[in-house]
Amino acid sequence: MKTYTYNESINNLDTLLKRDEGENQEIRSRVLEIIDTVKSQGDAALIDYTEKFDGCRLEALRVTDTEIQEAFELVGPEMAAIIEEAAGNIRAFHEKQKEETWMYNPSPGITLGQHITPLERVGLYVPGGKAAYPSTVLMDSIPAIVAGVDSLVMVTPPGKDGKINPNILAAARIAGVHEIYKVGGAQAIAALAYGTESILPVNKIVGPGNIYVATAKKEVFGKVAIDMIAGPSEVLILADETANPVYAAADLLSQAEHDEMAMPILVTTDADFGERVIAEVYRQIEADLGRKEIARKSVDNYGFVFLAENLDQAFELSNAIAPEHMEILLPEPMQYLERVRNAGAIFLGSYTPEPLGDYFAGPNHTLPTSGTAKFSSPLGVYDFMKKSSILSYSENALEKVYKKIAAFARSEGLDAHAKSVERRYEDK
Amino acid sequence: MKTYTYNESINNLDTLLKRDEGENQEIRSRVLEIIDTVKSQGDAALIDYTEKFDGCRLEALRVTDTEIQEAFELVGPEMAAIIEEAAGNIRAFHEKQKEETWMYNPSPGITLGQHITPLERVGLYVPGGKAAYPSTVLMDSIPAIVAGVDSLVMVTPPGKDGKINPNILAAARIAGVHEIYKVGGAQAIAALAYGTESILPVNKIVGPGNIYVATAKKEVFGKVAIDMIAGPSEVLILADETANPVYAAADLLSQAEHDEMAMPILVTTDADFGERVIAEVYRQIEADLGRKEIARKSVDNYGFVFLAENLDQAFELSNAIAPEHMEILLPEPMQYLERVRNAGAIFLGSYTPEPLGDYFAGPNHTLPTSGTAKFSSPLGVYDFMKKSSILSYSENALEKVYKKIAAFARSEGLDAHAKSVERRYEDK
Repeated sequence: MKTYTYNESINNLDTLLKRDEGENQEIRSRVLEIIDTVKSQGDAALIDYTEKFDGCRLEALRVTDTEIQEAFELVGPEMAAIIEEAAGNIRAFHEKQKEETWMYNPSPGITLGQHITPLERVGLYVPGGKAAYPSTVLMDSIPAIVAGVDSLVMVTPPGKDGKINPNILAAARIAGVHEIYKVGGAQAIAALAYGTESILPVNKIVGPGNIYVATAKKEVFGKVAIDMIAGPSEVLILADETANPVYAAADLLSQAEHDEMAMPILVTTDADFGERVIAEVYRQIEADLGRKEIARKSVDNYGFVFLAENLDQAFELSNAIAPEHMEILLPEPMQYLERVRNAGAIFLGSYTPEPLGDYFAGPNHTLPTSGTAKFSSPLGVYDFMKKSSILSYSENALEKVYKKIAAFARSEGLDAHAKSVERRYEDK
Repeated sequence: MKTYTYNESINNLDTLLKRDEGENQEIRSRVLEIIDTVKSQGDAALIDYTEKFDGCRLEALRVTDTEIQEAFELVGPEMAAIIEEAAGNIRAFHEKQKEETWMYNPSPGITLGQHITPLERVGLYVPGGKAAYPSTVLMDSIPAIVAGVDSLVMVTPPGKDGKINPNILAAARIAGVHEIYKVGGAQAIAALAYGTESILPVNKIVGPGNIYVATAKKEVFGKVAIDMIAGPSEVLILADETANPVYAAADLLSQAEHDEMAMPILVTTDADFGERVIAEVYRQIEADLGRKEIARKSVDNYGFVFLAENLDQAFELSNAIAPEHMEILLPEPMQYLERVRNAGAIFLGSYTPEPLGDYFAGPNHTLPTSGTAKFSSPLGVYDFMKKSSILSYSENALEKVYKKIAAFARSEGLDAHAKSVERRYEDK
């Protein structure tokens, strides 16, 4: 882990954190070819690409009820119960995000409002292999189900045996996913955006994926909506000397084990505390960490300690970094909430470690990464609902203002706009 | 205008309405070059491109207070008062969209919630020339101001005389825009996304523009947030035989005059009414329409009448089209609100014509076009605020569940996640 002072870092974060990476043109052209092939050949292209990339020739793309029942047997009742309990907590939190249609009468004869409706069809991408996380299935699908989406369609690449990870299937069923297809990569994104014989097109695609999936999502954006394209993720722990370095180190490592490019960041007002955390991070890696190689690379290359002279500097650094996960390890942490301008999720105090939010507490773990918390929110029910404005004027209400509307329209050179209101009153 | 029955159209709308257009690779490569040049050369590139594309060599990019005062003199007090009144209505509606931070206690020792903060810096693109609409300045900037954005930065190309349309400048000042720069096109989008000596980078870019602007927005998406990329706009009037064909025709034409590719669509349960509207549309074009050439091309090439056998079919067609603007010209129109699944804005009854919403009533006129109302909302305060999840567990609350969290983490192979919670209790 590298240590920098506030002055060394505050105007230099983009460089230090190596953000804003360019796109890969070669990957883009391969993705465009895959999208075109799926558009023209439909299911046949999906079957061929799955054979090529995933190593299995499928008879049918859609996962059957029998396969889901088999999955539950493999998962076992104990794990299924934990998934159920987590799903219940996630559902309860997201119910609070649900918005309702509203209307009001600003003046006699006038009604204005906002009509709220769920999206009709949503696609959920779930990565295969080692990154197949049932917790992500819960986090990405429950908000859509709470929103009232008619059809939530999951796609995920099969293994060489043509099967899907049983925990994934169990989580999908518990969450309430409506349709599941065995297809991954850019070809799955193309199928969701444009449709094939088996897969009807969706209105929005969410969920994480590798560079091919991310590039394909960016390409189909506009035809369908997409969620933010996730980069490597980060945790930022803001702590003073009262924090426990063992906990801080453990939480930094829970991020580091995800990915060699994950960023564990400590911002502290106490240089001595910073040194103790660094020592403890390496001690824990050596002592007993399962994924120690990945964690060590993350810590070595992307681990940072930023030393602030006071809490003002500490929060300024944190807000400039806009971390995906932020832990505040200060006494009475709730009082600092108003100082947080940019963060995906805020974990307050010593007994709210990041993994609590990853699995169980209820708020979403799909969060804006790589500084995008400056303009993005956690995945939520609001991502699966949309708004339509409502306007209603009576004859008298319009009559009072139509001349102003006509004048405004003419100032923009839009004569037919002016006439549209004027024709209502031209005989009067 | 072409007329189709429900059966001829319901499964054929994408083809009929010619949606889902491909991108232009040549434009894309020119846009990429412009973005790279602005990234490397900053203000100098902006000055050069403005000379090349807008025909004026600027001394300074930023609009001064003196220029804004001059603009108000040109606009005059009468028009300024109309802009002020419209701005007041827009502000009042958008105040209702403001969300507040919330928290709750699902169990003892547990606090969960959602922290709401405005974006810090937002860029607003305003087209120049004939498409320079002060109403759009109001509609795009007031939600950001209501949200509490710290810095709202407007960019718009100057005319050959180096000046900005005075109505645009007046509307920007009335709305509360903080900074205005004379730069347009892809170079303006690059400046907003990456920053130059004069223009600090923003977190999000909104506002309409030509194909270069739209392509540039798509390219910088990810580095910054963007609003939906707008296509040609449409109005859909759903009417039965009780509607007034003169009003319906006038409202179709208010859309048609925007753009040769604008789509005026009538969905009606009465074939005779459809014919009367078509006749009236052409009569009004000939009689007195200012922009008759544009309107005629729009009506000829992109005007449609869809004949439904009943209201069920009519609403099904409308929801499949997902119009930007929808007028419901039926008796007691409010009762049909629940049947509207996809629409940007819903105008109810004979005295709520679309131009009322374009200028004056209060709801936003920046709406999802080209069918994107299936997954997008009107521009609103929610586009300029973001959410951070809040989590706080006490020592006891975490102790009750940490073994489940550890089990879930281990099921995903994430050992350090498990250890992060376990280390809090390993001495107990």
